[in-house]
Amino acid sequence: MIIAKVTGNVVSTVKNEHYTGHKLLIVRPMNLDGSLYGDESVVLDGADCDAGVGDIVLVIQEGGSARLVARAENPLAPVETAVCGIVDTISTTQGTIKQ
Amino acid sequence: MIIAKVTGNVVSTVKNEHYTGHKLLIVRPMNLDGSLYGDESVVLDGADCDAGVGDIVLVIQEGGSARLVARAENPLAPVETAVCGIVDTISTTQGTIKQ
Amino acid sequence: MIIAKVTGNVVSTVKNEHYTGHKLLIVRPMNLDGSLYGDESVVLDGADCDAGVGDIVLVIQEGGSARLVARAENPLAPVETAVCGIVDTISTTQGTIKQ
Amino acid sequence: MIIAKVTGNVVSTVKNEHYTGHKLLIVRPMNLDGSLYGDESVVLDGADCDAGVGDIVLVIQEGGSARLVARAENPLAPVETAVCGIVDTISTTQGTIKQ
Amino acid sequence: MIIAKVTGNVVSTVKNEHYTGHKLLIVRPMNLDGSLYGDESVVLDGADCDAGVGDIVLVIQEGGSARLVARAENPLAPVETAVCGIVDTISTTQGTIKQ
Repeated sequence: MIIAKVTGNVVSTVKNEHYTGHKLLIVRPMNLDGSLYGDESVVLDGADCDAGVGDIVLVIQEGGSARLVARAENPLAPVETAVCGIVDTISTTQGTIKQ
Repeated sequence: MIIAKVTGNVVSTVKNEHYTGHKLLIVRPMNLDGSLYGDESVVLDGADCDAGVGDIVLVIQEGGSARLVARAENPLAPVETAVCGIVDTISTTQGTIKQ
Repeated sequence: MIIAKVTGNVVSTVKNEHYTGHKLLIVRPMNLDGSLYGDESVVLDGADCDAGVGDIVLVIQEGGSARLVARAENPLAPVETAVCGIVDTISTTQGTIKQ
Repeated sequence: MIIAKVTGNVVSTVKNEHYTGHKLLIVRPMNLDGSLYGDESVVLDGADCDAGVGDIVLVIQEGGSARLVARAENPLAPVETAVCGIVDTISTTQGTIKQ
Repeated sequence: MIIAKVTGNVVSTVKNEHYTGHKLLIVRPMNLDGSLYGDESVVLDGADCDAGVGDIVLVIQEGGSARLVARAENPLAPVETAVCGIVDTISTTQGTIKQ
């Protein structure tokens, strides 16, 4: 899992039927000093999360796990990455980040 | 999932039998400012999509998911990456991209 | 598997239900000279390990394996990376590292 | 899937029993201008392909798919990457490549 | 699969129970000119291989395959990467490498 920040949304009308009703979020990985790095990716919001733009989130990047996190209503949804948690605080030897 | 642009097609006569009847598209990842980056890859078109050269698409890169998206007629098609949606608009803190 | 050092913890209240009761650790990959490199990632502690900040650990990065290592109580926990061992010593042609 | 060129062969006597009778090829990824890039990797030849040194091929890099492509005689062969097609032509907005 | 050289061993007492009795090797990827590159990783020795420090080996990096190669006694061992062959010779357009 990585720590990431939600930076946007995607609207797609022509898409796989299993995504209907799920939020498609754009996220970027976040360093422990709060800066963002790397490429944007598109992830599904997890069934237990309801994340929005600006949230610091945990993103799971492995298909088998992401399907478990996001599949709420559709057990066959083709999901590769999903939000699996919203971060409250991160405590490291370098300091602390809060939401 | 990543955001990508369709930039070409592949013609292959000698290939795995399960690809017969599926479009093989060349895509490149797209930044949120519309520029392309990284390496080209070859993906199958999803059963619900019918994407073509110039389209901005969502590409799923995990095998278990890509098989679900593309397998329409062949449940055993060996698929690693597939188009799973065509983007209408992307709204981020950096601006908006339309198809 | 990679060699990594535990550098922090994550607190998350809103998260997938299967993570409840599992430690979420922050780790960074470690070179054989003891220096750290690359990006931090968030991993679950393995059921047999009980690792803490400062430990040199083995991290498994493939979902099917990480679920086996961490699933102790929840066979459906969506796990992507997990601690699967605590290193005692590493002996290479470049020298030796001890915990 | 990526586009790659076959650049060599591997001979290995001590190996997993399921590779017996399969060609082990060395490939390198190919750009759309015909140049090669990145690291060599070792792939199995697909059951429908019979590729050789110099061929431009499609390589599938995901285990579940590669097992389907290569498993011809051994359904349990541990296969991670395999040749799944031989390219005839690639048509892109940048031009055309022929075998 | 990649070509790699075995450069060391790992000793770990506190670890997942399924690794007991398996060798944990440190490997680094090898170029076709015999030089090493990239990061070290920790792999299990395959059931048919018995590799040691200095050997040129084939390493499989996909979980489903690595479990097949290494699982000899433990069908549930959480394995991500494993040695699946020992190289005799590699013949490419750039020359030949022997063990």
